[in-house]
Amino acid sequence: MTKRVAIIGAGPSGLAQLRAFQSAAKKGEDIPELVCFEKQANWGGLWNYTWRTGVDEHGEPVHGSMYRYLWSNGPKEGLEFADYSFEEHFGKQIASYPPRAVLFDYIEGRVKKAGVRDWIRFSTTVRNVTYDEATKKFTVTVHDLVNDHVYSEEFDNVIVASGHFSTPNVPYYPGFDTFNGRILHAHDFRDAREFIDKDILILGTSYSAEDIGSQCWKYGCKSVTVAHRTAPMGFKWPSNWKEVPALVKVEGRTATFKDGTTGDFDAIILCTGYKHHFPFLPDDLRLKTANRLATADLYKGVVWVHNPKLFYLGMQDQWFTFNMFDAQAWWVRDVILGRIEVPADKATLLADVEKRVADEDAGKDAHDAIHYQGDYVKELIAETDYPSFDVEGACQAFFEWKDHKKQDIMGFRNNSYRSVITGTMAPLHHTPWKDALDDSMESYLQNEVNAAVAKTA
Amino acid sequence: MTKRVAIIGAGPSGLAQLRAFQSAAKKGEDIPELVCFEKQANWGGLWNYTWRTGVDEHGEPVHGSMYRYLWSNGPKEGLEFADYSFEEHFGKQIASYPPRAVLFDYIEGRVKKAGVRDWIRFSTTVRNVTYDEATKKFTVTVHDLVNDHVYSEEFDNVIVASGHFSTPNVPYYPGFDTFNGRILHAHDFRDAREFIDKDILILGTSYSAEDIGSQCWKYGCKSVTVAHRTAPMGFKWPSNWKEVPALVKVEGRTATFKDGTTGDFDAIILCTGYKHHFPFLPDDLRLKTANRLATADLYKGVVWVHNPKLFYLGMQDQWFTFNMFDAQAWWVRDVILGRIEVPADKATLLADVEKRVADEDAGKDAHDAIHYQGDYVKELIAETDYPSFDVEGACQAFFEWKDHKKQDIMGFRNNSYRSVITGTMAPLHHTPWKDALDDSMESYLQNEVNAAVAKTA
Repeated sequence: MTKRVAIIGAGPSGLAQLRAFQSAAKKGEDIPELVCFEKQANWGGLWNYTWRTGVDEHGEPVHGSMYRYLWSNGPKEGLEFADYSFEEHFGKQIASYPPRAVLFDYIEGRVKKAGVRDWIRFSTTVRNVTYDEATKKFTVTVHDLVNDHVYSEEFDNVIVASGHFSTPNVPYYPGFDTFNGRILHAHDFRDAREFIDKDILILGTSYSAEDIGSQCWKYGCKSVTVAHRTAPMGFKWPSNWKEVPALVKVEGRTATFKDGTTGDFDAIILCTGYKHHFPFLPDDLRLKTANRLATADLYKGVVWVHNPKLFYLGMQDQWFTFNMFDAQAWWVRDVILGRIEVPADKATLLADVEKRVADEDAGKDAHDAIHYQGDYVKELIAETDYPSFDVEGACQAFFEWKDHKKQDIMGFRNNSYRSVITGTMAPLHHTPWKDALDDSMESYLQNEVNAAVAKTA
Repeated sequence: MTKRVAIIGAGPSGLAQLRAFQSAAKKGEDIPELVCFEKQANWGGLWNYTWRTGVDEHGEPVHGSMYRYLWSNGPKEGLEFADYSFEEHFGKQIASYPPRAVLFDYIEGRVKKAGVRDWIRFSTTVRNVTYDEATKKFTVTVHDLVNDHVYSEEFDNVIVASGHFSTPNVPYYPGFDTFNGRILHAHDFRDAREFIDKDILILGTSYSAEDIGSQCWKYGCKSVTVAHRTAPMGFKWPSNWKEVPALVKVEGRTATFKDGTTGDFDAIILCTGYKHHFPFLPDDLRLKTANRLATADLYKGVVWVHNPKLFYLGMQDQWFTFNMFDAQAWWVRDVILGRIEVPADKATLLADVEKRVADEDAGKDAHDAIHYQGDYVKELIAETDYPSFDVEGACQAFFEWKDHKKQDIMGFRNNSYRSVITGTMAPLHHTPWKDALDDSMESYLQNEVNAAVAKTA
């Protein structure tokens, strides 16, 4: 009887998994029956933009954390699929920091070409997963949200690809319950124009803080104040942007910081990160890990050590994204196809996890972390038929990117890099990021035309 | 062996159920083992205010839909507990439209006095309920959110008291995905001061529309525009408030209505109602009903006709609230205690539902609807030992309230009514509602002091 594999989520990781199996099938391999359960009505995961916040049209927590005017905050040269280049998709090379709509189109292009859409059951959320030691099968209970129908099916393997940037971590500070403005988490941030002429306070110092602050600045907020708990981000910010110590409390509209200074704010945006959240999993199958490069309890970063029939994709903190998900998906596929053997001895699996944690901990800085994750990607692709690519070159793009940010935090997106897949240099974008107010694909792809115009002008 | 009863939710309905059992125990009756599962860290359901929106600190959808400065939108004389008067709780009679904090205190007072808190497992959300025909038991699977631990227990009965004003109904209109302001559902509305000097567009014509609009007006929004799909609310609104036909689309910040008129808005507040939402229930146990006085599939408005060991409390649309939940809770208690028999014949149960639907449909207006629900409350309390009270008198308070609203929509809360429990007339509040900007209990309870001052002044 054909094996059945459940994939939870049709975002970049889940789609990578479908593409991995499809590529094996195309080469003549017998593959299992695949069922991918996707809560949203379309694929793309976080990249599937929604204006909704809170809960969706079915009363389920909104998955998407993306906002309008979001442009990639890292160079596309670091995330390009080895089996599907930007040039293949767009018919030309494009600039290095595409807006969301462009990346969504790119992600979608590969899976449209692969023809995997029929494997996905959309608007279907997973409610419960159990494992039966006797039958060695998983029972997956799902809710078909359109027909309001709950049903269960059995599977030999489950692959959790539901992401970990969807459930916000929302801390409380004294006075939040009586703040006279808006308090929101980055997860619920949608349109920067809402904050035109506003004084905004951002808590946090990671990507959301940096990018949401930059956007609000770009679209005309009055001021940005970022409170940090450990250290400031330290970029060269615009004049109406400052970094202050940790928030202590708010009263009315006034915030007090750890150094005793105060400020009045219209909105507080919590850029305080996300939680790994799997409300559909029982204790013995549920990943509990910090957001780090070496997760807890995952052999090779993907196999659940306490039940190796269960896999997790993309649960690491990320420098590498799409191509790392590919590396993981191809590797998991080969375990399921019996091409790669997972050691039967649990101690071996645990030792692998322990070594990864130690290796990450031995790194000193972001440079080491990028190399660490690059090496992990290389390790996985070496064991499968995923097209090998110049991972070092991608690391190099990341290093340049970091330097460019240090030089000009509001202008780093004006740079371009060389594709490690096609070797082509990306063109410069036709408009500096800070002046590009239109985030549509149409506008972005005018690149070459306008670059030509620029040359003749 | 002692029966075990699971109660889902510790809001007004769930607490009514605990109080009902406790009152029987106090009279010497043997009662089942009760376990009440409450998702929030405290009791009170909707009345337990949270500044949070979207998901809570555990990543679970926020239950609360209440906002700061919320004052009861109906007279307290219509919702007073027959077994615990406002005078018993506050030691004096208080004005008729208390703010949220005052009502929370009142609800809490009764259950503190009853000593039922130990029956509640807080921060515990119900994930899954199943029924086993062989054992005649329910298995309830819950997630202890503090300890991040999932476990299951068996019960003889399940009482669903999780409310139906927590999961917003959020429609889409063309242009919502590119609106350059904020779009929120009433569920996520928190502080009216956020909308000072703003032009707000409200969709809907029911209580949320009326009350959120009034609040924004009271705290200084620039204008309120309410779009209706069928008919305007038709109250005598302030000069910066207007009612317009249904929304057709938005572009940028501009909304277009069905009559071709347009307007520019900073925020769109969707007062578009709530959904009955039970993500923890399988198809055969899950209530699917419109928000109406006679729900689908509930015998006597509480017994699940397809499995009479399962009960639902407070699932009706409501004129009567706390005292109706009491009537239901006492009645359900008596079924579980074997004092009331539910007919074994399913056709009888279905016929009861059908008759209730027909009787509601026969009503012509709000007046009939109030009487219809008053009669339902009387029907239930006549069959239990819940203290009989003057339901007609409560109906009378509702009628007066409706007249007062018609006379002065921004001033109806300045009226007072007679308690049907103690017979006392409520004092007038010390400050007209439109000038009372402080919603604290301390401020509200200064009533008599200030009334005395007023007299001598």
